[in-house]
This record gives sequence, C-alpha cells and structure tokens, in this order.
Amino acid sequence: MIKIDLPEKMEFTASLDAVKTILDHALLQSDDLVADIMRHLTLANGKNFRAMLLLAASTDKDGYVPRNAMISAAALEILHLATLLHDDVIDDAEIRRGQPSIQNMFGKKSAVICGDYLFCKCFLLVADMSAQFQERFKDIAKAMTKICMGEFRQFKHNGDTSLSVRDYFRIIAGKTSALFSLALYSGAIVGGNDEKEARCLARFGYYIGMIFQLMDDCMDYETDYLTAKKSVKHDLAEGVITLPLIYAIYKKPELKDVIKNHTPTASELNSIISDVLALGCVDTTRDVAERYYQKAKKTLKQIQDEKKRILFSGILEKIKTRKF
Amino acid sequence: MIKIDLPEKMEFTASLDAVKTILDHALLQSDDLVADIMRHLTLANGKNFRAMLLLAASTDKDGYVPRNAMISAAALEILHLATLLHDDVIDDAEIRRGQPSIQNMFGKKSAVICGDYLFCKCFLLVADMSAQFQERFKDIAKAMTKICMGEFRQFKHNGDTSLSVRDYFRIIAGKTSALFSLALYSGAIVGGNDEKEARCLARFGYYIGMIFQLMDDCMDYETDYLTAKKSVKHDLAEGVITLPLIYAIYKKPELKDVIKNHTPTASELNSIISDVLALGCVDTTRDVAERYYQKAKKTLKQIQDEKKRILFSGILEKIKTRKF
Repeated sequence: MIKIDLPEKMEFTASLDAVKTILDHALLQSDDLVADIMRHLTLANGKNFRAMLLLAASTDKDGYVPRNAMISAAALEILHLATLLHDDVIDDAEIRRGQPSIQNMFGKKSAVICGDYLFCKCFLLVADMSAQFQERFKDIAKAMTKICMGEFRQFKHNGDTSLSVRDYFRIIAGKTSALFSLALYSGAIVGGNDEKEARCLARFGYYIGMIFQLMDDCMDYETDYLTAKKSVKHDLAEGVITLPLIYAIYKKPELKDVIKNHTPTASELNSIISDVLALGCVDTTRDVAERYYQKAKKTLKQIQDEKKRILFSGILEKIKTRKF
Repeated sequence: MIKIDLPEKMEFTASLDAVKTILDHALLQSDDLVADIMRHLTLANGKNFRAMLLLAASTDKDGYVPRNAMISAAALEILHLATLLHDDVIDDAEIRRGQPSIQNMFGKKSAVICGDYLFCKCFLLVADMSAQFQERFKDIAKAMTKICMGEFRQFKHNGDTSLSVRDYFRIIAGKTSALFSLALYSGAIVGGNDEKEARCLARFGYYIGMIFQLMDDCMDYETDYLTAKKSVKHDLAEGVITLPLIYAIYKKPELKDVIKNHTPTASELNSIISDVLALGCVDTTRDVAERYYQKAKKTLKQIQDEKKRILFSGILEKIKTRKF
C-alpha cells in the first residue's frame, strides 16, 4: 500500500517527518468518494504526538528508528484520527484541531463512514507486519476496545453530576492512556526490545497518558474560550464532566443544580469555572497529576536502555508542563 | 478470548451450531456498559448466512470443518453485525432482523460506539490466527474498505433519481458481494485449499453476492410491507434507489418527479411500486440476476473438489430462488 521509498532505518527527528509523509500519502491516496474529507484531514494536521511516542520507544542504541516503526506510527495516528471522527459524532463537536470537525462540515453520517474507512486504513498499513509481529493485532484490538469503552462511559455519564472519581479515571484511561500505552509498547516491540522492557514502557505510557489528560482537563478551566482550539466551555457545554469539576461539586454541591438537566448558559459557565478555580480544584487535580508523575519517574528508572531513559525523561517533563 | 471447548474439526451442520455458540458467547461476554445492547443483538439473531458460506468453503474431503474456520465464521458475522449497526445509523433504519434497530432503541451515538466495539471483537477473534494466516487481516481490511465505500456511495446517492446502473452495481458489490467473497476466500484458505481454488471460490462468492442482492431488491418490490422484516417501502422511503426503480425511471422518466426532493407518501409509494412491476422492471432485474447465475455456474465448474462443487451448487440454487 505504501509506495514511498523508506530506508531500513532513520534518525529519530527525520523519522517523524517520514511519518507525516506516510500519513498524508495514506490519506490522500483514497477513493474519490472520500477525497474531500481526507484532504480536509491532512489540512488540520495534529501534532502526531502518539506517533512521536512510538518512534521514541523504537529507537536503537544509536538513536535510529526502524522502518516498521514509522509505518506503525502512521497507522497509530490514523487509528487516533478514526476515534476522533467518531468521538466528534458522539460529542457533537464543532471544532477539531482548530478546524471545523468532519461531522460539522460533512455531516454525522459521513463522519461515521469515514471513521470506519480510517480503521481499515490503519489495519491495511500494519497488515504486512502480521507475520513478524503476531501480537500486534491483538494489542491494537484490545486498545481499540478500551478506547471504545472509555468513550461510551463518557457518553453514558454525559451531564452526570454524580460521576465518581473512579469512573472519571476509567474514562480517561480509555480515551487517552490506552493509546499512549499501545504506542510505547508497539514501538518497543517493533524496535526489537524484549517483552519486559516493552511492558515497562507500556506502563510508563499509561502514566504519561493520565498526566496528559489530567493536565488537559486542568487547562480547560484556565484557557480563554476565544483563543483555545478546543475549550472547556465547550466540553462542559457538551456535558463532559472532568476531575476539577467533580472536586468542586464535592466542595460545593449546589453546583449540581446549575449543571443538571440543562446546558449551562455562557454566564453560568463562567460562574462555574470561577468557582472551580476559586475552590482550588484545579490545583487538587494537578496534585493527582503529580502523583502519576512520580509513578512515571519510578517506572522510568526500570528502563534498561540509558539513551531511551533520557529521551523519555525529557518527554515526561514536557508533558507535565504541557509543552506538547 | 474464546473459552469454549472446540474440537479440532466438526461436521458441517454441527459446526454451524458451534458458530452460533461462539457468537453468543462473544457478544454476551462483554463489558457491563454494553451488556444490554449485546443481549439485544443475540435476541435478533440473523441467519448467519455468511458464516455458513465460510464453513462450507472450509470443508475437507470428508465434509469436516476445522476449528479455525468456526472462529473465523463467528468473526465474520460480528464484522457483518458491526456494519449493520453503522448502516442503520446512516440509513435511519428503525427495524433490523425483525427487531427495533440498535440506533432506534439505544440511540445513534450508542450504535456508533457499539459498531466500533464489534469491529474490535472481530479482530480479537481472528488475532490468534495472524501468524498462521498472515494475509487474513489484509483481506478483512480490504473487504471492510469495500463495504465502507459501498455504504458511502449508497448514502451519497441517496434519493438520486439519476443513479446509474454502473453506480448501483458498485454499491451492491460493496455492500453485499465483498463480504460473501471474503467468506468464501477465508473459508478456503483456513480449510487448507490452495490459492487458485481459494480465488475461484472468492469469485463464486462475488457472483452469488450479486444474485443475493439483486433478488433482495426484486423482493422489495413484491413484498407486503406489513409482513416483511425489512421492506422496500421502507428502503425507498429512505431514498435507497435500486435496479428495478432505475429501469422504471428509464422507461417512465416522470417517476423522477414523484421521488425527487421529498419523501414519497404511502400512496405515492404504492403507485411507484405498481409502476415498477407493471413496466416489467422486476423481471428485467431478474434477468440480470440470471446472467450472474450463469457466471456463477461456470465458475463452479472450475472448483476442483467435487464434494464442495455439489455443496455450492445447492447453495447457488437456493440463493437464486431466495430460499435463504
């Protein structure tokens, strides 16, 4: 399927550009029917953060990334894109990556089919590796299952002001950590690491996924709606309840009544956000992220390859300060 | 994933029951979140026709079906179920297999996520076979791509009274023949047949898929709405235009004006159906099915295994008279 000439291995930074090329190529080489939608998806290019994680996990002692890792990374980004398309259908999201979402621009039905189409693309990309890496498909299918369940749990608890902390963690473990964990595990395996090292990286991936999402949910309560690509006001307006708000409801149960049974108005939203900040609930959420940060650091020490340890230490710091 | 004790091989008829058990087991062993929906899906059990085709293609000289074929057949039915869930979202279908559709009963959003969940289930089922049958994933992904494109083409041409015969064939090739062809090809490969025999069976599968769909579209113009599980009045009311109507529009272009730009009323629908029948367009569609029948018969002769030839000859006759 991939007609691009890829060398057997590439230096880490260069490999990220290669993934972007594979990605654009895979999206643009599509059936005429979906060409417009695929073109729109290449315009609103994401940061390919999950791809970067996979590539980093696959590096050898000299910092080189094998060919199969680049293809896997592109497949992972396509899988992520597919889930975003369906998420936007479920959440009625109007904006994605600073552009009108597919469901908004082309309609929900097109978004459903195109999400399915992207799942196929993902599997086609990795299909060639099935003999070499037997377990890859099971991993992808398992991660996809977790993502589905995370999304479904979020949807079921939409507007649920009684959402428990436990259920919140189950939601974000599915919607973010599952794919981060898969990225690191797959990268490690494709890069020739042993099972123990791969599992260690997978666990690290799980932790940074949790930090990533927790910080994201904090930022949602601190970002100006007009400048944010995807703002909290929007999330909350869609009934998505995150940890800062759960804590705030514990401290000030009256907040429930504002949210319950109707979409909050702009002024209600502003007042809720002020409360969440004033009650220190964003700080408490950051403390939770800090605990995952400590766990991630501990796990990092168990990674045997020193170069990789340094690489992921840098990534961890950036995630903690949300520089990605 | 499958905890059922399956023997290494089973006699054909018994293997169909085993597939039903695997299927129910796979659906019912689901996350609590989706349990209600999965239970509903097991209630509205289909005829598992695609599974039957796969099993038939996998039989050995003594008429036995190998274990992997039963698992593949269950995976195929789950894939089919996943596409039906998303199809019903796209088509706003209220009824499926004589029961309220998932999108009707649980909402479109639940149907989207559960479709995705079933895709995962399908891949999990076949994942264990990835080492033994490397190409299986590519086949599934390719067939899925065709199904997506078939569905998307049907959706894009919804209510399009200028739909060409060529586009109609592209739609039904995607929505029906792709999976029939995959069923026979996979069955043949899992059953240990060589590539030539498998390709021959795949082609036969393509032809019977076309006959199956053409006969279905004929029956839609001949079936009483009240007794049919899924009737044409419904299809046409949803803007789905099939071959009998395309032919009728050629002969009586005024029909376009009745259908164009609005959902036909019950009396308009009755009048269109009468016209399609009176103009002999169902008969002309049957003639097209007859041509595919001749092609299928020719292909059948090239199948080397005599027992299989007899088995598929029987299936072909039943499909032609729509006894399935």
